[in-house]
Order: sequence, then structure tokens, then C-alpha cells
Amino acid sequence: MTVAHLSRARTAARVIERCRQIAALTEVPGETTRLFLSPPARRVHTLVTEWMQAASMSVRIDAAGNLRGVLPGPTAHAPRLILGSHLDTVPNAGAFDGVLGVVLGIAVAEELRGQSLPFAIEVIGFSEEEGVRFSTPFIGSLAVIGKLDAEALARTDRNGVTIAEAIRIFGLNLSDLPNAQLAASSFAYLELHIEQGPLLESEGLPLGIVEAIAGQTRMSFVFEGRANHAGTTPMHLRRDALAAAAQWITAVEVYANEHDGLVATVGRIDAQPGAGNVVAARVTASLDVRHASDNARTAAVRALVSAAELAAAKRGVTLSTQTHLEQSAVPMDPHLTRLLESAAKKSNTPTRKMPSGAGHDAMIVAQRLPAAMLFLRSPGGISHHPDETVLPGDVEAALNTAIEFLSLLRDDKTIPKDDHA
Amino acid sequence: MTVAHLSRARTAARVIERCRQIAALTEVPGETTRLFLSPPARRVHTLVTEWMQAASMSVRIDAAGNLRGVLPGPTAHAPRLILGSHLDTVPNAGAFDGVLGVVLGIAVAEELRGQSLPFAIEVIGFSEEEGVRFSTPFIGSLAVIGKLDAEALARTDRNGVTIAEAIRIFGLNLSDLPNAQLAASSFAYLELHIEQGPLLESEGLPLGIVEAIAGQTRMSFVFEGRANHAGTTPMHLRRDALAAAAQWITAVEVYANEHDGLVATVGRIDAQPGAGNVVAARVTASLDVRHASDNARTAAVRALVSAAELAAAKRGVTLSTQTHLEQSAVPMDPHLTRLLESAAKKSNTPTRKMPSGAGHDAMIVAQRLPAAMLFLRSPGGISHHPDETVLPGDVEAALNTAIEFLSLLRDDKTIPKDDHA
Repeated sequence: MTVAHLSRARTAARVIERCRQIAALTEVPGETTRLFLSPPARRVHTLVTEWMQAASMSVRIDAAGNLRGVLPGPTAHAPRLILGSHLDTVPNAGAFDGVLGVVLGIAVAEELRGQSLPFAIEVIGFSEEEGVRFSTPFIGSLAVIGKLDAEALARTDRNGVTIAEAIRIFGLNLSDLPNAQLAASSFAYLELHIEQGPLLESEGLPLGIVEAIAGQTRMSFVFEGRANHAGTTPMHLRRDALAAAAQWITAVEVYANEHDGLVATVGRIDAQPGAGNVVAARVTASLDVRHASDNARTAAVRALVSAAELAAAKRGVTLSTQTHLEQSAVPMDPHLTRLLESAAKKSNTPTRKMPSGAGHDAMIVAQRLPAAMLFLRSPGGISHHPDETVLPGDVEAALNTAIEFLSLLRDDKTIPKDDHA
Repeated sequence: MTVAHLSRARTAARVIERCRQIAALTEVPGETTRLFLSPPARRVHTLVTEWMQAASMSVRIDAAGNLRGVLPGPTAHAPRLILGSHLDTVPNAGAFDGVLGVVLGIAVAEELRGQSLPFAIEVIGFSEEEGVRFSTPFIGSLAVIGKLDAEALARTDRNGVTIAEAIRIFGLNLSDLPNAQLAASSFAYLELHIEQGPLLESEGLPLGIVEAIAGQTRMSFVFEGRANHAGTTPMHLRRDALAAAAQWITAVEVYANEHDGLVATVGRIDAQPGAGNVVAARVTASLDVRHASDNARTAAVRALVSAAELAAAKRGVTLSTQTHLEQSAVPMDPHLTRLLESAAKKSNTPTRKMPSGAGHDAMIVAQRLPAAMLFLRSPGGISHHPDETVLPGDVEAALNTAIEFLSLLRDDKTIPKDDHA
């Protein structure tokens, strides 16, 4: 075992330790719950600022509450690489969702401090990604791409406090919001994040290279039949809304199984009147469809609406549908993604390409910068739960891969040159 | 049109009118709700007593609140034919469920008054069949077969009043309960009742001859899988409890469609956690299976439990089931049923044989007496609803068939003779 290897293992252990330190900063004692601009968010700022400063970074908190540490490049105008993820959590969260990417960013800066890089590194701890407090996700990343608009700022939490007011109450100045935007010299974004799913673990892989953040359609389906006595109504005279919905749910699963990379889920169902001895008159069910390809997703939605129409018509049941969300896929930058793959290979880490089924800050930042994303295996596929964890070896592999990635970027001919160098 | 025909049409119209008069006697103004021994039950007793007395019947109210009118036979010990149905209702009921059979019974007695019959006719208006007030159905008919026992009498309504107390409060005397039993000379029971289902209407038939009251199994099925993120969990790594339940519900419908006379219903379903973006971890669903043959029903239950096990196992989901009700079929008396068929034929009324999917007083009385049951078509299959109705022509056909049935009984060699005649 080389000295570098030993040192990286120690760094990985410290990264995990730091994530657990942050997890202790919470609104709810005994669990980890840290919403946007909550009191513990300030304590996180204080703690992470110390770590950033110890890594020779200059630190500020922007008007959206994002914590931003910069390890300077050779000149004030040097191109800037952004490493980021989020510092807020869901209620009763684990210690690694979001936080790991920020802490790993700082670790990368620490490891590379003293080496002469042609670019600056900015580590951003986004203030908000989960969308819990204001039912609005990505408040932090929208601010850095200049898209946190007045409509969003007017949204209220359950106490009637607007985002704008929350920012003021936290002691920040909304008029500084334009300064929250990424420096013009920023040229690439890398996000390290736990997978939050079981795929890497099921294939024995420590890391995954995200090709795209899946697009998503969310709908509700209403099957309207007729309530009838379960004892006196022969099968052929029924208009059973639940039988129709059941045939459709089975079709949803079959279709998704047959189409690579597609996930389709019916997670919510309600049958009325809901008595064991009455044929169901009305069933409402949800549909969630995701795919890295928008074409594959919209084709799936069309096919699944047809399947529902068929299942309904067969039983004299009527169907109505409503679309609640229609979100396009966000591809990661192909060149950066290739560099990330090479970096993993150079650090002898087996990986696979995969879509991200969940949304991440990278999908917002990708609107402004070429973006790439690296997943770390989630043991048990568990996330948004206190049992969420990471393996020390995987954290070390991610650290090695990120450092290799920066080294490949340094030598890459496509990255912008520092005009002032 | 004969005079008799004209007169029967008028009688049928009056039967319907009387049912509507009774429907106006209610606990809840604006709807028909008349539970066991409620204040309007007393007003029904007063009204129906008048009609019975006008039909030359002697009337009493037994200790279970059953209203009983007897048109005497040639001697005090003459064999006795029982015509009956119930006078209580479900909440917000229609006008004909139960009541029609009682009012038709009186009409039969009126039509036959003055003719010399070798038997007495007793019309019973059972005090309770629906099981609403005490969650215990058939209180009235259980009393007349001597099976209203101490355990049943101790059951309480939602105000904590026992059946025994309700009987006392209504002014009846529990010590008279033995006298509620059917006279030893009773030899047959006939119940006229609306179908409460759509079968007769769908086949354009006014009347149905009930062969058996279907047996019934009620169960609940619990599918236990694993909650997973709908975006990050590939299809092949899911344990989707709702997909398993849906495959099973489809199998329930297919099985019932393929087996003559079987009805099987999943009317209640609950999926947890019940979020559109989370794979369902736990689904609870009901199963209601009915058939006139107990063998066919228990074979169906076995097959449907197997289908659920298969659907669960395929997805790494576990299954548990619970049986809440297991009730055998009650066949109607074959000889009486044949007479009823002949009677319908003689009155030129097309009928079909059919099971009753719902329970009726006849299934209780059948434990003591040979019983037969005649169904009247339910327009729209509607029952337990204010829109419940009957067609005047069908009521006339039922009246004609019942009168023919009595005429066939008169000449039937199998009925007991009056030893004292």
C-alpha cells in the first residue's frame, strides 16, 4: 500500500466523519432534519467555513444562502471549476444525501492545494435542493444560474413566510442576489452524490457515471365505473373500476420491464366506495414514469394511457387522466462524462454508466455550465432515511476519481484558457 | 282484459302505493331510514295492522317485534303457510326491499279471502333483517325459529343499548319470546323480494325463482413488499406490493368470469405509504366470494389464494390472508321451488332460476321449514338507495304467481293434512 493510498483512505474516513458531524446539526433532536435557512443551517455554515478556510479557500455566503469556498487559480480571472451539492435535508434524513458532495469537494481542494492547477476550484454547498420547506426544490442552484425569480421568491412555507422573507430573516440581503450568479469564468460543474438507489450495489460497483438525469412524467388516472352489490351483480353486468385499474397497473409493470432504462410506478391508489361487498365505482391512481430519453418516456406515457383506455373500455368504465408534471431529461455533458469515465479507469475503479432517476442540482447548473455527475453506491439502496450510509472504500474511490478528473481537466485542450495568465 | 286481470292490476298498484306509504315512516325526515324497533317501526305496526285486519287477519306483535297477521284455516290446527319478509331498512333506503314481500303477502290474503283453503296463511313482517342497528342481521327471523339466544340479546347498539333492552323499551316482553316461535302446524315458507341486482332486467324477465341463497367467504389479503424510490429503483430490483395485488385482482376477475354462477369481488384496497413517487410497500385488499354451491365457492377461494401467492412470490412480496366470514349456501326446498316454477308458468310469467347473492330471511326460516323464494326484477339493479323501485306489471305477475302457488299447494299431496278437520 502506497503512502498516497494510505493518506486517501484517511481522508475518506475523515469525509465520512465530517458528514456525520453535519448530520448532528438538526432542527429535531435525535434525527437529522435541516430545511432551507433553518437555524442549524447557520451552524453548518460556521462548521464548513472552518473546513474550507483550513483548505486555504476564501469563503462567502451568497444571498440565497449558498455557502461558497474558492481555492484561487493562478490569476483572479482563471477559469473556474465548480464542485457542488446541497446542505439541506429531508425530514429525518441520512447523513450523506447532498452533504457528501460538499465535503468531498473540500477534500479534493485539500488534496490539490499546493499543486499548480490552471483553474480555480469553487466548492458550493447549495442551501436548498429537497423542496421541503417551500414545496420548491433547487432554490440554491436556481440562484447561482440567475433563475431564482420573483414568482419563486413569493412562495410561502406553511407559516406563510415567503422565500424572500426567509432570506431576510436569516440575515441575508436580497439585493445581493445578482452576485449569487456563477462567475463568468466558470467552465464546468461536477457533482458527487450518493446513488439513492440499489443498482450499483446489485452489480457490485462502487461508482456510477451519470449520463443523464431522467425526465419525469407524473399523472393521475381516474377510472369511473358503477357501484354494485358484490353478491347480486353477476360478473358480466359489472362496471368494476378496480378491476380496470388492476389490469392497467399490471400493464404498467409489464411495459416498464420490457423497456430498458424505463421505470414506471403506480404508488398511490384509492377505490371508492371502498367496501368489501361493493363493486368499486371510482378508482384514482398515480403514475410516475422516468427515462433518460424523453422520446422513450413520452412513448411510454402514450402506451400506458392506451393500456388504461383498453382496460377501462373492456369493462364499460370511463377513464380520465391529468398530467401534473412533465419534465424533460437533462443530459450530462458528453465530453466531461467521458473524462469522468477515464478518471475512474485511471484510478482502477469499476463503474457503469447510468441515468439518475432522481433530480439533482446538476440538472439546474447544466442549464448554464457543462455538467457531470458521479454516483457513489448506496448500501441497501437506502436514502432519505437515518440508515442511509456509504462505504469508506467507495468514498476513497470517488475522491481518487475526482482528483484524476481534475488532473485530466488540467491537460484537456477544450477547457478555456486564462486570458490574463 | 278480464275482470280478474283488471282487479289484480289495481291490487298491484295499491301494493306499490302501500310500500311508499310505509317508506314515509322514517327516523330521518326526507329519506327512508327505519332501524330495528325505532319509533317509526311502531307507526308501521299501526298502519300494517289496519291493512291486515281489513284483510280479515288476526294480528299480534311478538316479543321480537315481528308483526304477524293470521288468516285462519278451516280449523284452529290447520296447517299454516308462512309468507314473510322484513320491515326494517338500511339507512337512506328505497321503499321495496323487504316491505314489498310483507305488503304482497297481505294482498295474497286479501285476494284469497272467502276462498276455502285447507291451510291458514300467516304473514310475518320481520322486525329486523338488515343488521344495521346491532351489527346483527336476522333478529326477527331468528326469533321465529327459536334461535335468538342470550348471546345475541346481549349485543349492543352504538348507544350501548342491548337488544334485550331495546325490546323492553319498545314495550315488549322478553319472557314472551318462546311464543314468537312458528306454530308447530307451519309447513312452508314463501318470501317475495326484489332481486336487488341487475340480472332479471338484463334478461328482460319479471321474476326469478331462487334456487339457493349463495354461500359467502369474506377475506382480507395483505401483500408485503418494500418501499423504494420510484426514480432510482430499477424494475428488476423492486418488491412492489401494489403490482402483486394488481395481478391478483385481475386473476380474481378472470377466475370469476370463467366459473358459472360465481361472483368474486375486490372492493377495498389500501396501498402504503401511498405516495406517487414511492413503490408501494404494503397493500391490503378485500375478497368477497359467493356461489350457490359451497364446493364451487371453497374451490374458488383456494384458487384465488394460490393466485395471490403466485403474484406475490414472483415479486419477492409476502402474502398473508385472514378469513372474516365463511357462510354456507342455503338451498331452497326443491319441491316448493318446482311448485313456484309451475305457478309462474300457469300465470304466463317468464322466469329463470337463479341464486340469491344477498342474504334474506328465507335462509334463516329454511332451517326450520321448507322455504321458497321469488324475486321481482329490480329496475337498474338498484337497491339500498332511494331510487330503488319495482314495475307495476312485475308486482302483478308476482301476485298472480303467489296465488297460483297457493292454489298448487292446496292440491299438493305432500303437504300435511289437518288432523282435526
